[in-house]
Amino acid sequence: MIKRTTSSVLKQIGSEIEKVPEAALFSHVSPDGDCLGSMLALGIALECLEKKVTYYNEGPFPENLRFLPHIHRVSSVIPEKLPKTLIFIDCAEAERAESSIVKKHFQGKNVINIDHHVSNDLFGTLNWVDPGAAATGEMVYELIKKLGIPITQEIAINLYTAIITDTGRFSYSNTTAKSFKIAAQLVKTGIDLVSINNILFEQKTFSQTKLLHKALSNLELHQNGKIAVIVLSQKDFEETGAEENLSEGLVNYARNIESVEAAALLKEIDTKEIKVSFRSNAWLDVNKVAARFGGGGHIRASGCTIDLPLLEAKNIVISALEEALTHGRDH
Amino acid sequence: MIKRTTSSVLKQIGSEIEKVPEAALFSHVSPDGDCLGSMLALGIALECLEKKVTYYNEGPFPENLRFLPHIHRVSSVIPEKLPKTLIFIDCAEAERAESSIVKKHFQGKNVINIDHHVSNDLFGTLNWVDPGAAATGEMVYELIKKLGIPITQEIAINLYTAIITDTGRFSYSNTTAKSFKIAAQLVKTGIDLVSINNILFEQKTFSQTKLLHKALSNLELHQNGKIAVIVLSQKDFEETGAEENLSEGLVNYARNIESVEAAALLKEIDTKEIKVSFRSNAWLDVNKVAARFGGGGHIRASGCTIDLPLLEAKNIVISALEEALTHGRDH
Repeated sequence: MIKRTTSSVLKQIGSEIEKVPEAALFSHVSPDGDCLGSMLALGIALECLEKKVTYYNEGPFPENLRFLPHIHRVSSVIPEKLPKTLIFIDCAEAERAESSIVKKHFQGKNVINIDHHVSNDLFGTLNWVDPGAAATGEMVYELIKKLGIPITQEIAINLYTAIITDTGRFSYSNTTAKSFKIAAQLVKTGIDLVSINNILFEQKTFSQTKLLHKALSNLELHQNGKIAVIVLSQKDFEETGAEENLSEGLVNYARNIESVEAAALLKEIDTKEIKVSFRSNAWLDVNKVAARFGGGGHIRASGCTIDLPLLEAKNIVISALEEALTHGRDH
Repeated sequence: MIKRTTSSVLKQIGSEIEKVPEAALFSHVSPDGDCLGSMLALGIALECLEKKVTYYNEGPFPENLRFLPHIHRVSSVIPEKLPKTLIFIDCAEAERAESSIVKKHFQGKNVINIDHHVSNDLFGTLNWVDPGAAATGEMVYELIKKLGIPITQEIAINLYTAIITDTGRFSYSNTTAKSFKIAAQLVKTGIDLVSINNILFEQKTFSQTKLLHKALSNLELHQNGKIAVIVLSQKDFEETGAEENLSEGLVNYARNIESVEAAALLKEIDTKEIKVSFRSNAWLDVNKVAARFGGGGHIRASGCTIDLPLLEAKNIVISALEEALTHGRDH
């Protein structure tokens, strides 16, 4: 259960994998580009070594990840009988793979845990946790190289997706020289960067575009433009035909206005159930603001749920941000 | 005047530069991140070799490039007396540097031409033109390494900006493994990727955000969503307080809708002067469509100016796109 240095545990995982004829791969609930891309890349690589591989994820998959090579192989149903080797990809806890169902399968298994979350609880029998990796995809790349398996286009598409989704196209603070070096090797396989970037970051449904229009219609600035707030009512979702999960990223249209320090997006999930996302740019601690409403997160990105009608929720969110702006710097 | 192989001309330019005590650097009109970043990076590097460097660009600089280290050194006024060595960065023709004024200065000068445009007319006495480079910044990186100058943070910020603006954050088809390899070396200097990406791609003025809202309000789909058209009237620009050049990129909100093959953005510059940008996604040749109105460009991105009232211009643009959609595949 001891966290080991990368090179020794990587070597151990490599020789473990070389030995076994079969492995079951798991990745986390609410799947994203890193967990799916990394899992599929590793699975495809193991199949190059003639291993039998099964893939599990609770799903559902975001629409824009359905292009990932071999994604149709992923099952949401975990069978009673699993192979001796279970490999968890990008899961900080085993429970992240499949709510509570997984640990009952652990008896007598080799549980390999490959992840980059600093919060990883080292649940495996072999734990390789590298919080310095921008994406678990970077670690899977290293493992595949260690196993001497050539990077095919199918592997490259999956790993490139893993890395660009977790680094926001190489723009988040987790991006390192290594992220770029690995990307250089992946693009050498001739993958179509333009299409992948289009699918992941550019393409929108018409409903999403209409929802953006609604969001901008409802955008308000307060405190000389230092606060920006967007509300989206149930009516807005109905009129645009957009699902609630398509509002992801809209808070950035508020945050990215140059005068803004703090931004909030309020979504009316139900009449008295308002989901709030907070963002800040330079100094304001929105984790503290969300905590006032029983939520939390990080200093620059947090969230909470407020059980009030939309308009009331908006007003107390604005008050809380105003107060944080005025007094926040004193504390 | 012969175009030489990269390695021999790079060597020649390197030894030329090592010899001279002074150089004047030029970059192209309507400056962008690649021409300014590449010019400034090379100049800072030459100053590390104790050369005297002067920088020229007609300007004006886009607001979001004003953070580039040493940009305050760039002058728009070319003096009568110039040093013996003139270095042109990212200019396909000398005239691109300063409308017609430049060539009168060429007599008896060493004119070094460093550029990645395939259309470069080899106007220099030494011409290094590499259309395989995603950005001229990649070539300048190579030259700086050739000269043995260490990459400082100021150089890295300029070159990183050059590369990410010309590759659209590593998403355009010009992006190569080399682009990523150079980026890896640049980020090793510890530059703040997050801030640079924010300034270049995320941050918007409130006027820009309001203009986006107007654009989405005016967005129309035609032909079962295969055509998307946005118009922006003079009134829209007045009401939002946005300058016309802030509309760059808005056409992508039309193009990125998943049903869309062809998109157009029409801007009313004057009562009967409509600037049109065309984009297509998969197959439609918008270069041909623009050519019908006396414009041109590329297969997937083109433009023209139509001397008609806005509404009439919109209607003939829609007709032209409908016709291209219906008949385009036959030809």
